[in-house]
Parts: sequence; structure tokens; C-alpha cells
Amino acid sequence: MNITPRVKEILSWYGSANPGTPTNLARMLSAGRLGGTGRMVILPVDQGFEHGPVRSFAPNPPAHDPDYFFELAIEAGCNAYAAPLGFLESGAAKFAGEVPLILKLNSNESLGVGEPDPAVTGSVNDALRLGCVAIGYTIYPGAADSNDQYEALRGLAEEAKSKGLAVVVWSYPRGSGLSREGETAIAVAAYAAHIAAQLGAHVIKIKPPTAHIEQAASQRAIEAAGIDISSLAARVRYCLQAAFGGRRLVVFSGGEATGRDALLEEIGGIAAGGGSGSIVGRNSFQRPKEDGIALLHDIMEIYARAAAGEAVAAG
Amino acid sequence: MNITPRVKEILSWYGSANPGTPTNLARMLSAGRLGGTGRMVILPVDQGFEHGPVRSFAPNPPAHDPDYFFELAIEAGCNAYAAPLGFLESGAAKFAGEVPLILKLNSNESLGVGEPDPAVTGSVNDALRLGCVAIGYTIYPGAADSNDQYEALRGLAEEAKSKGLAVVVWSYPRGSGLSREGETAIAVAAYAAHIAAQLGAHVIKIKPPTAHIEQAASQRAIEAAGIDISSLAARVRYCLQAAFGGRRLVVFSGGEATGRDALLEEIGGIAAGGGSGSIVGRNSFQRPKEDGIALLHDIMEIYARAAAGEAVAAG
Amino acid sequence: MNITPRVKEILSWYGSANPGTPTNLARMLSAGRLGGTGRMVILPVDQGFEHGPVRSFAPNPPAHDPDYFFELAIEAGCNAYAAPLGFLESGAAKFAGEVPLILKLNSNESLGVGEPDPAVTGSVNDALRLGCVAIGYTIYPGAADSNDQYEALRGLAEEAKSKGLAVVVWSYPRGSGLSREGETAIAVAAYAAHIAAQLGAHVIKIKPPTAHIEQAASQRAIEAAGIDISSLAARVRYCLQAAFGGRRLVVFSGGEATGRDALLEEIGGIAAGGGSGSIVGRNSFQRPKEDGIALLHDIMEIYARAAAGEAVAAG
Amino acid sequence: MNITPRVKEILSWYGSANPGTPTNLARMLSAGRLGGTGRMVILPVDQGFEHGPVRSFAPNPPAHDPDYFFELAIEAGCNAYAAPLGFLESGAAKFAGEVPLILKLNSNESLGVGEPDPAVTGSVNDALRLGCVAIGYTIYPGAADSNDQYEALRGLAEEAKSKGLAVVVWSYPRGSGLSREGETAIAVAAYAAHIAAQLGAHVIKIKPPTAHIEQAASQRAIEAAGIDISSLAARVRYCLQAAFGGRRLVVFSGGEATGRDALLEEIGGIAAGGGSGSIVGRNSFQRPKEDGIALLHDIMEIYARAAAGEAVAAG
Amino acid sequence: MNITPRVKEILSWYGSANPGTPTNLARMLSAGRLGGTGRMVILPVDQGFEHGPVRSFAPNPPAHDPDYFFELAIEAGCNAYAAPLGFLESGAAKFAGEVPLILKLNSNESLGVGEPDPAVTGSVNDALRLGCVAIGYTIYPGAADSNDQYEALRGLAEEAKSKGLAVVVWSYPRGSGLSREGETAIAVAAYAAHIAAQLGAHVIKIKPPTAHIEQAASQRAIEAAGIDISSLAARVRYCLQAAFGGRRLVVFSGGEATGRDALLEEIGGIAAGGGSGSIVGRNSFQRPKEDGIALLHDIMEIYARAAAGEAVAAG
Repeated sequence: MNITPRVKEILSWYGSANPGTPTNLARMLSAGRLGGTGRMVILPVDQGFEHGPVRSFAPNPPAHDPDYFFELAIEAGCNAYAAPLGFLESGAAKFAGEVPLILKLNSNESLGVGEPDPAVTGSVNDALRLGCVAIGYTIYPGAADSNDQYEALRGLAEEAKSKGLAVVVWSYPRGSGLSREGETAIAVAAYAAHIAAQLGAHVIKIKPPTAHIEQAASQRAIEAAGIDISSLAARVRYCLQAAFGGRRLVVFSGGEATGRDALLEEIGGIAAGGGSGSIVGRNSFQRPKEDGIALLHDIMEIYARAAAGEAVAAG
Repeated sequence: MNITPRVKEILSWYGSANPGTPTNLARMLSAGRLGGTGRMVILPVDQGFEHGPVRSFAPNPPAHDPDYFFELAIEAGCNAYAAPLGFLESGAAKFAGEVPLILKLNSNESLGVGEPDPAVTGSVNDALRLGCVAIGYTIYPGAADSNDQYEALRGLAEEAKSKGLAVVVWSYPRGSGLSREGETAIAVAAYAAHIAAQLGAHVIKIKPPTAHIEQAASQRAIEAAGIDISSLAARVRYCLQAAFGGRRLVVFSGGEATGRDALLEEIGGIAAGGGSGSIVGRNSFQRPKEDGIALLHDIMEIYARAAAGEAVAAG
Repeated sequence: MNITPRVKEILSWYGSANPGTPTNLARMLSAGRLGGTGRMVILPVDQGFEHGPVRSFAPNPPAHDPDYFFELAIEAGCNAYAAPLGFLESGAAKFAGEVPLILKLNSNESLGVGEPDPAVTGSVNDALRLGCVAIGYTIYPGAADSNDQYEALRGLAEEAKSKGLAVVVWSYPRGSGLSREGETAIAVAAYAAHIAAQLGAHVIKIKPPTAHIEQAASQRAIEAAGIDISSLAARVRYCLQAAFGGRRLVVFSGGEATGRDALLEEIGGIAAGGGSGSIVGRNSFQRPKEDGIALLHDIMEIYARAAAGEAVAAG
Repeated sequence: MNITPRVKEILSWYGSANPGTPTNLARMLSAGRLGGTGRMVILPVDQGFEHGPVRSFAPNPPAHDPDYFFELAIEAGCNAYAAPLGFLESGAAKFAGEVPLILKLNSNESLGVGEPDPAVTGSVNDALRLGCVAIGYTIYPGAADSNDQYEALRGLAEEAKSKGLAVVVWSYPRGSGLSREGETAIAVAAYAAHIAAQLGAHVIKIKPPTAHIEQAASQRAIEAAGIDISSLAARVRYCLQAAFGGRRLVVFSGGEATGRDALLEEIGGIAAGGGSGSIVGRNSFQRPKEDGIALLHDIMEIYARAAAGEAVAAG
Repeated sequence: MNITPRVKEILSWYGSANPGTPTNLARMLSAGRLGGTGRMVILPVDQGFEHGPVRSFAPNPPAHDPDYFFELAIEAGCNAYAAPLGFLESGAAKFAGEVPLILKLNSNESLGVGEPDPAVTGSVNDALRLGCVAIGYTIYPGAADSNDQYEALRGLAEEAKSKGLAVVVWSYPRGSGLSREGETAIAVAAYAAHIAAQLGAHVIKIKPPTAHIEQAASQRAIEAAGIDISSLAARVRYCLQAAFGGRRLVVFSGGEATGRDALLEEIGGIAAGGGSGSIVGRNSFQRPKEDGIALLHDIMEIYARAAAGEAVAAG
């Protein structure tokens, strides 16, 4: 595996880690079409658990089969494929070594009522026996039981790191202290990224930040500091700052964009702001496979071009 | 033990497992009258714990004796016998090796009030010392404490798998977010099967799905995807799809059928839809033993014929 | 230690156990005046913890001294003496080997308010270091926290069995789903015995069942099956059936009887119904020692005569 | 260390213990001015944690320094000094071997609101590394969370005993089922002593019992048994009976007495009733050191004289 | 490392500790500009987690980068730098050995609602693998869940001590039993310091105590004992007394002071009262780095002068 200078630079951010962790980060960063660029596109599939197979997979029936996602990630050239225990157990042997795997350790089903409260459905040992490069874990900062989530993550991350795995944290603000718009407000999104970083995440996933201001105190601080929040690129740039001065990998899910063009424009903003990449779920698998692959390639192309531009600027 | 091509094919679905697990699945799939067909009829007996001995066993007094169920399962040629700790401890030595055993690890008594909340009454180690092929566990997706159930199952399943056992999960949607009819609605039943599969179950047990639609979102998704839910066979077929594209064993309990003929017709629908088999409790032991055996044989005959038809079609 | 044929027969019910467990059951069944008959009279003393020393021991002041109970059990020829940690620690060394001991692992004090909720006050290791033959544990089926009790018992019983001890379970239905009379209703008492058996108890203790019917469903089932509940003997016989077809030891506490004659008549009913014996607490120690011993001897005589009659019938 | 016959007799009460435990009890019973008499005066200091330094130590400023209590206990010739982790850590090395130490494992602070609910602030391992002879633990029988306290004590006591330490239990009835006066009512105090003994305590600390009757049932039992509760000595005598027929060490805190003379008269009653000694906190350290020592000496003198009288009577 | 007589004296307060703990305390006390004086200035940075990056770091954008704090602490000559897991992991390798590190094990985020309830976000093992000299932990005496905090600290502190680390406890009274002013009232602040000391802290951090009196009982006790609370220096002196007679290191956060001069005056009071030093967060990093360093130097100068004066007085 050839480690590019940009990947080497990224690995240098994680100097306190056991060698196994940068090794596994390198595997993710060097895989697929964006391998070596420092940018990543990851395929995550926990919609079946979160919303049920009818709403998740019926729009594209072949996606009922777990092999479909391995094949989609491999054929599209994703950096990694992230899913809960059952999906990874289903194909990890058959597709061994073909794509880096992230075992998503907690998920939330939607048959119950009340605030999201994910159940832990896998272990670090599961991730190891299935050959994964990382564990994934979702936290809901601001939720009533966020402390339980932080403390469970603490233990899982410590164990994962001691065994050379990487730690990917989905950070989604939520709870009675936040409005619906507030969940993606720039100050809140940046805060969510910072919490994940403080909890020891190597890769952080947040939603694209909006220009919404949730709290007067944030408004004053943003104005006083003259932080530019006028464009998505600018806001992404600030979120990267909030995640340890740009020295943590921060990837983004799809935001408010609906439709292919809007989505690609959004990705363009993320890429321009220096975002480390995208996590693309429904948009990639709720359409025929060739369409999904084409879309993923277009997204990768945007990141590849941004990375090349950066390299030129740096060079 | 001769492993048939169909059983080999089923075992291939579980490629990530330790060899002990497909070994134990093969034991179940190769036992009894349906041995080798890929279909199963399992005898489950936790009614004594769930509803008390008077309501469960008084209709057929010899069934008060735990030996009765071992004998029934063996004489009828069931693929396995599933029961809580006490029942299995009672006969595991006397009937050692005569029928594959599944230790049911949680059960619910009905002297209390409130939502079902099963207690864990056995351990993986109990299953091992009693010579079982699998552990069994019930989850109630949608119930207030479903997360506790998922997380307990997570630990038990991980331990069971690491010791080469198979994992059988009963998945019964329940809770304040669902109507009584909604518990067996097609989208909900398929969701229940999918959750069990994601939690790592090798064998999944659900109730026969009905054409009821619980949520408008499901209705739209079903219609948009053109999923056929017009017959029980079609609905069973979709539930198998939801359980990893048909690559998990899914067995069914008795549904709304009352009376022998209606039950056999229901089984016919399940078999036609490709269902992996049935779990037959009360219907098999709340009548004289010869009647129970005769009924089980009729059920097995339906599955055997469906399997033979499939083999012809495949051949 | 000479093991009689009847004791050998009883031990055969526990074929799945490690040899240590039937060894300890044999010690209990072979001790005292009823040794070898298959019947038992056990002295239990947790009244001090449950109701305080004034109400428990002041009626017979020498009973304030824990030695008193060891001496009473030994002199009367009981099969075993059951008590909480403190009482057993107090005399286990002085009376080592003179009477089989059962360490009662949970108890309930009555200074607080609310539903009974026993605290765990001893461990399996305590039972081993004190030379006990068994652990004792109380469950309250139907109580709000019955699941906690079942799950704690599960762990303790698994550990006890793995170390060759026997498990004695006191099963007392309770809770908001039951009327006061319902707690001893025949269907409920039989259910309580069945639950204890399913949880893996070797010896089960219930209260004498009454002809009360708590639920219409039970009424119908009892009538349909033609179960005889007209006499205490008949009801005891059904409870034994409910406890694995008569293949578990089931002993009874004192019921509604007040006064010596009524008590002995009640014992007569239990003995006639095949009950495995009695647990006699307050009646034996809240009177002068010679009176207590005389009463215990009368009780044992009833069981001895019933056992002899059985032997004749069997012979 | 010379073990007197009286101490040997006391040690014989604990026949089931590992030799380490009577060794440590012998150290306590043989230390200080009362060494060898079978009576004890123990200095307990958790008032700082329980009520804050201002209210506890400001009345006698040198008592802010933890060395002060070691010196007070040593100079006065106490049998032991009991305190929480911080205080013992502070001086255990400097005063190593000069006075037996009891590590108080739980304490309650008074900045919060609601029922007393002590936090566990030390471990058995802490007691061992600091060279203590015993652990100390407070239970509140009747309190809402008394079961949690009993169960935590169970584990700590089992560990302590397995490592040869002694176990001292403070037993203070409390909770919504008791009136303020009821907390020291004779039947309740005796019950509290009995519970501590059943939980396996070697030394029990209760408050001086009053003639108050909390419950009609107790009243009737006391009258029926003709228990003498007319004097403090008589009531203390009954509490000793309740603690295993006088075969457990029972020490008393200060009761309602205010002022030096009233306190000494109260001690006289305890000593006359056969009480094993006193635990003297505030009275000993909220005055100048020489005054504190003088008071402790007067108290010890009362016990010494009672012990001598007993010896004469016994001789 | 040269250990000054003053540092040796301080180490002598911790005589019961494993040698590793005074070794690590010596490292902190000997580091930086105040090295050897017995006084300390510590840089703590958990504001990002507690209040979000916008409010914490936007006022001085370079502070978004975790390297900034290592550099600030090193360049200013602080005794130690304290931060949560993520921040320390980020720079521990790069700045290995350049400044003593304290891993802050619990933190509180402010996106949720309700009483502060810190999550545990790191472990003793994390502190060891990152080369830290101590763990840090915040307790909230008086808060609804203070017992959970004490008990978690108990376990962490025991483990830290057994592995030779020092324990730093932030003690902030809070909860429905206290008014806002009461949280820093002299009797309450002294109580908070005492609780931390009893829990086994080696270094205690409280807020500067005010002359506010929260409870009448404290008022009477203060007056009766003639405690001087008229100046900040006097109140600091009493807090030191409350922390084991001045034999625990007690450092202070910034109090009510706003503005540079007021802050330095406050520090003057703390230094005059014998306070062991200051923990300076926001004031040091929410301004340009040279300004921050200048302020820290001014603060250190005040402590250095106070230490020199003490040495002269002592000499």
C-alpha cells in the first residue's frame, strides 16, 4: 500500500495512537477512487434498522440483499462501507479484504416512541473478528441520555484504540434544548464536531452546517470574532477549525439538498471548505446500481478536483 | 451426518461464523423428518412459564411431565425442541443426543401487570452444558424497553457465537407506537425480521404477516415499489427478502388460524412463500400425543412437498 | 451414608446435574428422623430479619441465641436448617456436620414501606465456606420487580450448580395483579411451583393451595380438564404435577391452620397428597424447646407413616 | 500481645471466621486503656464529611488537622479510631501501628436535600493498604434505599472477611415508616442490631434505646414476654440479646444526653446493661484536647469498673 | 530534578501514598516558573467541551488548535496543563515531556438542559498511556447525583493511586439546597474543600470563597469560633485549614473579578492567604498569546513573591 504525502500528513495528526490505528486510517484513506487524496466517500447503510426494509430498500429491491452494498461500495470505489453487525457478518467473509469496513456499534429503531435512544448492537471484538478498520458510534449531544452515550463510547473507543482500530463518531445534536433548525446551526454543528473530537474520535461525521443562529451568545461571539458563515464552504471551514484546528477528519452527510444537482452543489461547498468527504447513504442505493455508482463517481470527482487544486496550491 | 446440497447452500449464508455455528445449524437442519430439506418444524414449550401450567398443560394432562415434550419432538421427528432452563435440565441427560435442543434464554410470566418484559432465565453456559445447538431469545421491537432486550441479546449472541452455538431470535413487535393489528402488519413483520437479522440472528421467528398497513409511509412505499402483499405466500416472500434477501432462516408461529384445516392452509401459504418452517407449540401438545404427532406430520408433509417442488424447479 | 431406594429414585430426577448436587440433596434427604423416606421437615429461621427479634423471639426468649436453632434442628432430627448469613456464621463451626445447612440468600425487612423487595444478603461462596448443602432464595412471582429476582436467582443458581450445591426456591405470588386470596389460589400456587421449577430449583417451597379461583380462564381450564381441587390432598397433588410431573421436591409452609390440631390436620393433607414435606418455622420455635420438638416429631410421624404407606403400596 | 480470658471468650463467638478476623478483633479489644476488658471506647470522626468543617471543627480549631484525631485516640487510649479515607490516608503512615484503625467506607454529606443516602467513599483494598483492622459501614434500616445499602455491605463484608478484616456496622433506623422517636424505640433499636448481626457484622453500633413503643404489635410482644424496658441498662441488655443472644459486640453512640454529667450517667446505664462500649465523637473533640482526654478517661473508667465487677461476679 | 525543601515538605503530607504519587506531585511542583516554590499555576482547558468552540475559542482564533494550549503552557511556564482526552491525545506525543499533563476525566456539555451532570470521558489507563502526572475529576457536592460522582471518583482515584498517579479534584457545590451566592459562601467552599480531601484528593480546586453566609448554623459556628472571614486572604486561609489543617494543596479558579487589575488583586488575596496557586483558563487563552503569557507571568510573580516572603519568614 503506497501512502501518499497527503495521507502521511493526515496520519501525523494522530501521533498519540498505537501504530495499528494510523495503519487502519491509512487503509481507509488509501482505498477506492479517492485513495491517497485525503478525501473520502463512505457508504453507510443502517437505514434498514433505523426505518425498516420497506421504506429503505423497497425503492430499489436488489438492495434487500446485503451483498448489494458490498458490491456497490467496491464497484463505486468507496473508501469504506459502514453497517451494523448483521449486514457486515453477512458479507465480511465473501468480500474479505475488498473494501475497508466500519462496524456501526449503535443504532436506533423507529417502531418505538420518544427521543432517539440508540441500542448498542455490536462490540469491538465483533469489529476485529470481521476484519474491520474502525468502529462507528452515534452520539446525540444535548439529548436527555447523551451522557450514557458518551460513557459507552468512552469504553468502546478505549478498547478499539488499544486494539489498533480507528474510531468514527456520528455527532447529531438533538434534544429539548434545541429547535429543529438549531440542530444544524453553525455554532451547534461546530460544537458537535468539537465534542466528538474531545471524546477521541479519529473521523467525525456531522450534518452540513446552516447559517441559523440558535443562541444569542453564539451570535455575539460569531460577530465579535468575525467568523465568516455566509457560505456553506465558509461554515464547513469553521467546523474543521472547531475539530482541533483542522487536524481531525470531518465528513458530512447529505443536508437539505433534494435532487441530484442540488446535492452535487452542496458537495461542492463541502469540498471547497476543505471537508474531508461525504457519507452517502440513501442517495446512493435508493436508485438502480449504475445510477448510484454514477452519482458516487460524480461526488468523488468533486472531491478529487478539490484535492488536486489544494495540492497545486500547496505545491 | 449427511449434509444435503440444500443444507450446504443454507450454511453458505453464514460465511463469517466460526465452524461450530454452521455445525450446529447443520444438526438442526439435518434432524427429523424434514432433515436435509432446508425446512424445519420446531417444538417450542414455554407456555408453562408464560401462562401457567393449568392453562397450558391441563388440556392434556400427560404434558405436565417434561419428558412428554422430548418424546413428542423425537417421535414426531421435529428439527429441534426449544424450552426454558428447567424443562431442558429435566430431560437433557435422559434424551441426550436424540433431538437438537434450543435453550430459550428469556421468558415472560403473566402474573404481573403491564407491558411484556421478559426475564433472562438461562445463560450461554447453561446451553453448552446441556448440549444445546442454539440459544433462543425473544425481542419486542417497539416496546419501551426494547433497547435493554437488544443489548442483552447482543452480549449473549456474541458469547454464543464465540462458542460455536447458533442464535434463534423470536421477534414480536409490540408497544404504545403500534396498534394490535399493526403488530403483524406486513411492513412491521418485515421490519421485525430485519431487526433480528441485523442483531445477528441465524434463525428468525416472526408471526405470519397480514395485509394490514400500519403507517401511511409504508403504504406509499409498498405501492411505489409494487410489492405484492395480496396473499400470505407473497407476504412471507417479502419477509424473507427483508431478512437479508432470503439468506436467513425465517420460521413462523401460528397466526390467526383456528382449527386444524385453517392451520394447515396457513402453513401451505408459508411453505409456498418459501418460509423456512414453523414453530408449533400449543397446537401440537394440547391434544392427545398421537393427534399431536399426526398434525405435526401433516405440517411436515406440506413443507416436504414444497421443498421437493423447489428442488424440481431448481434441478 | 446409606442411600435408600426412594432417595435414589428422587436423585434420578436430577440427571443433568453435576454429581455434587445430588450428593448434597442426598445429604438432606438422608438426615434426621425422616432420613431415607423421601420426605423432609426443614427448620427455617429468617423471622428475626423479616419481623424483628421482639415479635420473633420474645415469645420464647432462649430463641434469641442462634445456637438454639442449631440445637432444635439437631435434637428434633430435621432434614435441614435454613437461615440468613449471620445465623449460620454464628454456629456453622460449632455444629459442623451435625445438620445440613441451607444459606438463605435473600430476605426482606419490615421497617420500610411498600411491596416486599428482598435484599440479597449472602453469596454462593458464603454457602460453600460455611459447609452448606444448598442455597435458598425467595421469589415473588407477579411482583413489580419479580424480573430482578428471577435474574438474580439465575446467576446465583448457575453458580451454585456449577459448585455442586442444591437450590431451594421459596415461591410466593404477590403483586397488584393478585388479590390476597389469589396468592394461594390453586392455579396460582401451581403456577408459582412451575416457575420455580423452570428457573432450575431442585427443591420448591410454596404455601398450601386453596380452592380459591382467581381468574375465569383458570376456572374454565380446571373444569375442562376435570382437575380435582376439592381437598388439600388433591390440590397438593396437582401442585406436584405442575412441578414437572411430580419430579421435583415440593415442600409446604404452614397455611391457614391456627392451633396444633389444625396444623397437624393440614400436614396430613399435604402428606396424603404426596407433598415432599414441610418447612416449619414459628410453630416450632415460638414455644418451649421440648414442646417444639414434640410438635416436629408429630409432624415427622405423619410424613413417615405416609411414606411407609406409599412404600407398601409400591412394594 | 497478651490475650485476656475475657477477650478469648469474645473471640470464641466468631468461630466461623478466618483467623485474620479474630486476630484483628483481638487487636482492637487489646488496645488502649480498656485493653483486655472486653469493653471498648472508639473515636469516630466523620463529622467533617457529614456536617462540614465549620460546624464540626471550628469549636476546637486544632481539630482541623487530621493528626489531631490520631493523637487524641492514642493519648486517650482508645481501642480504635474510625474515619473516612482522606483522614486515614493523612496519618496512617505517620502513626503506623499506634492505634487500631477502622476505615469508614460510606458517608453522607449534608449539602444536598432529601433522605440520607450515603456514598461509598473507600474500599476493602484501601483498608488493607492503610493497615486497618476493620471496615466500617452505615446502614439505614427502613430507608427507601436500604436494600442497596445491605447489598453493597454484603459484597464489602464478604471481601473484608475473606481478607481477615473485621466488619463494624453502624445501624440507624430511618425512613417514612418510622416516626422520629421511633428511630430509637427499644423494639426498633433491637431490630436494627439484629439486622446488622444477620448481615454478618462483628461489631454493631446503635443508638441508646428508649422506652418508646412504635408499633402496637411490638407493645403486645414486649408485654407478653415480660421484657424489662424500664431502665436504659435493661434496654441495653435486651439489645444485646437481640444481637445473637449477647454474642456480638454492641457499642453505643451518645443518645439524648446533653452535658457531661448526663453523658456519664448514660454511659453508666450502657455499662450496667453489659454494653460493649461507646463510640464517642463530638463530645471528645469539640473541646480542648486535655478536656477531651479527661472525658474519655472518665468514660473508660466507668466501663473498666463495670468489667471488673463482672469479672468478680464471674470469678 | 532538584526537589526544594518546600516541595519536600509538601510531599511529606502524602506519607501513605505509593512512591509514584509523590513523584508525580514533585514533577508538577517542580515544573515551570514557579517550580520549587510550592505554588502552582495550572492551565485548564475544557471550555470547548463545556461551552462550545465558538464561545470558547472564537475570541482568539489560534486557540482552535490544540497545539496552542501545549505551547501556551510551556512558553508561560505553567506547572501543568489539564484537558479532556481529545486535547491531550492531540499533542501528548508531539510535546512529550515538555509540561506535566492532567487528564480531566469528566466534563459537562451545555447543549442539554437541567442540572450539571458530567460525563466520564477518559480513564486512568488513558492518563497512563498519555504520560500524565495526574487525573482530574469534578464533583458537585449538594447536586442530586453527587453520590454517583463521589463513587465514580472513588474507583478512579483508587486505581490512579495504585498506579502512582496524583488525583486533582475540582469541587463545586451546587444543587437545589443552595442559593447561587451560597455556592461560594465561605462555609460551603470550606466544606467543598474538605469533602474533596476526605475523598482522597491530593490537589483540590475550589472557587474563591466569599463572605456570604448560607446557613444560620454556619453563622453561629463562625462567630462562636471567631473565624476571620473579613478578607479574601483570611477566607482562603480558613479553606486551607478545612483541607486537613493546611496539609493539602488547594488551588483556586478565578472568582468574581472582571478585568486584569481586579484579577491580579484577587490573586494577591489568594497568595496572601497561603493558597497553593491558581487555575487560569479563559483569562489566559481568550487573548493574544503574548498577552496571555504576560498575564500568567504577572500571576506567577505574585505567587513567587508570596513564596519568597514565606521562605524569609520561615528562614
